[in-house]
Amino acid sequence: MGLVMDRAELAEFLDQAFPQVKGDFAIDALDEDELVVRLCVAERHLRPGGTVSGPNIFALADVGIYMAILARLGPVALAVTTNASIDFMRKPVAGVDLVARVRLLKLGRVLAVGEALMFSDGDTRPVARASMTYSIPPK
Amino acid sequence: MGLVMDRAELAEFLDQAFPQVKGDFAIDALDEDELVVRLCVAERHLRPGGTVSGPNIFALADVGIYMAILARLGPVALAVTTNASIDFMRKPVAGVDLVARVRLLKLGRVLAVGEALMFSDGDTRPVARASMTYSIPPK
Amino acid sequence: MGLVMDRAELAEFLDQAFPQVKGDFAIDALDEDELVVRLCVAERHLRPGGTVSGPNIFALADVGIYMAILARLGPVALAVTTNASIDFMRKPVAGVDLVARVRLLKLGRVLAVGEALMFSDGDTRPVARASMTYSIPPK
Amino acid sequence: MGLVMDRAELAEFLDQAFPQVKGDFAIDALDEDELVVRLCVAERHLRPGGTVSGPNIFALADVGIYMAILARLGPVALAVTTNASIDFMRKPVAGVDLVARVRLLKLGRVLAVGEALMFSDGDTRPVARASMTYSIPPK
Repeated sequence: MGLVMDRAELAEFLDQAFPQVKGDFAIDALDEDELVVRLCVAERHLRPGGTVSGPNIFALADVGIYMAILARLGPVALAVTTNASIDFMRKPVAGVDLVARVRLLKLGRVLAVGEALMFSDGDTRPVARASMTYSIPPK
Repeated sequence: MGLVMDRAELAEFLDQAFPQVKGDFAIDALDEDELVVRLCVAERHLRPGGTVSGPNIFALADVGIYMAILARLGPVALAVTTNASIDFMRKPVAGVDLVARVRLLKLGRVLAVGEALMFSDGDTRPVARASMTYSIPPK
Repeated sequence: MGLVMDRAELAEFLDQAFPQVKGDFAIDALDEDELVVRLCVAERHLRPGGTVSGPNIFALADVGIYMAILARLGPVALAVTTNASIDFMRKPVAGVDLVARVRLLKLGRVLAVGEALMFSDGDTRPVARASMTYSIPPK
Repeated sequence: MGLVMDRAELAEFLDQAFPQVKGDFAIDALDEDELVVRLCVAERHLRPGGTVSGPNIFALADVGIYMAILARLGPVALAVTTNASIDFMRKPVAGVDLVARVRLLKLGRVLAVGEALMFSDGDTRPVARASMTYSIPPK
């Protein structure tokens, strides 16, 4: 399914719809195959030891997959996360942004499924993977 | 496996080990079968519409199961979340605390598994369920 | 939501709808809170060492939660599994039936969520837990 | 981590270690990035309507990720599945083999994590995705 929003439109929508997380996320890239989203790591995202906390890793995957859906459905859509499965595989590198590579695997009439592979910026070994399902409300 | 920490000791450990979330969580009850933990909902936990955000639901389950493990292993333990699976089933009631009922299903030598069923305070229909696995480091 | 099928009706429906697994499963109990379903363990369900294989543990949870949904929607319903999350926690006891205690956590208009806790018959420590989501087709 | 078994050695090990599923699976390809494994679909793998059943989709992912681990650890290893998360996204094409593309995301000292994306042979839209964790016993 083709893209109906570009990177700038998605970023603007995100800022307006979720003002609480304004500045937390940035979209690095977007095409039909992949969306790359970055958690701009700040003090408030960290656990003792300087690594990104679990809830923020969850949030990064959730925001990324949600935006990959919106990029195809448009900003009116109100998709709701119904399931999330996450594997935490390595400790994030301290004090470094976390980058998620997101792919949409299914965009059906009522359900969408996407996955995110997350890396400490500049590192090639995945920190975490997540797959999430969204319920898409009827038009 | 018996409890080696009580409710007050767990609460104090939590405040010291995770100062970033101080005041966010309270332990309502703890016995050998169940731990009940509460997210003391404030503005910062909410999404537009006044409901608790996904990352905070994740955090509540994670903190609750982690404390159920610590209550049996003692405060020296450093368990790490390796897997989380969450089903989001109903919209939380706006402006109400979220309460998790936590059970430990396995406490092995290297892995522990627990589950949390979460409710808007005063409601009987579950908002979400989570199961999480923790890796327990060698002594 | 109340039950519209009883134990005998469910068992008969299962045999007719899924003749391939006839004789594999038996419903031990059914009320509004819980359904108990048994995998009648035979040679074909085992892995070397005599324990029940992973795919058969999956099948037990899937059949159990599916029947808990049908018991409420009636035999015309055609629910489809969309997500499954399983934790394998202990080796099943060799040569013993596997019993699942199933609860339905949500039965919505388009999605249903249930969970199963599985035990080797006669043992109190869970072998596995599973949570599954089903998509319910429009009437 | 480099490969210590090739495709023929893996296939032979599989036949000897799991005689119950002999003939069910074939390894199409194996290199350091990916293992491709095929469920050679027969009548016994099907549900009414001619599509591959959920437990067989589970089994395909489990066998594939297990072999990706063994290819690196050698045939002496006895890894045990501890967690599985599966999204069922599309109905498999009737009467066609199911093919899984498997990647190993982590191979640690005590835990390994892999993922599988599964397709009806010849189709490009994924039928299902799975991620699984294995516990690796101490040497």
